[in-house]
Amino acid sequence: MDNWTLLGLLAGFLTTMGFVPQIVKGFKTKKMEDVSSGMLLLLGIGMFLWMVYGILIDSLPVIFWNAIALSLNVVLIVLKMKYHHT
Amino acid sequence: MDNWTLLGLLAGFLTTMGFVPQIVKGFKTKKMEDVSSGMLLLLGIGMFLWMVYGILIDSLPVIFWNAIALSLNVVLIVLKMKYHHT
Repeated sequence: MDNWTLLGLLAGFLTTMGFVPQIVKGFKTKKMEDVSSGMLLLLGIGMFLWMVYGILIDSLPVIFWNAIALSLNVVLIVLKMKYHHT
Repeated sequence: MDNWTLLGLLAGFLTTMGFVPQIVKGFKTKKMEDVSSGMLLLLGIGMFLWMVYGILIDSLPVIFWNAIALSLNVVLIVLKMKYHHT
């Protein structure tokens, strides 16, 4: 594996794991009011399409990162529904 | 351009433009308290690395989407600094 591939994997790791601090914050504060449900929904659909695209082009990294990102996104959507009382 | 490439472009469009509703919400409510700064920071670094990776592998879509996503992310970081009074 060359350095460029490693860079791509690190980039995918960060843009996937970036959602973890938001999950931790949501759990801790039990507040999700300021987090946009439109953002969660669009990102979720996008990640799902990335995953399908990854399956079609047979790219394991694309499938892998987007499957994890989609799971984290679903957790955020559940937190949003649970903690956004309006 | 085949249908799979179109699907990939649509996926990139959604995971990039997904941040727009959060920007609109932040501007409207002037509240960013519940949005995790750790998330914005990790995603920002990740998008920057994706962009560098795109330049290295000479992939215009990777450069293009991540440049836009990074710009939107910077807007969110500014909103977060502006509206998060603690």
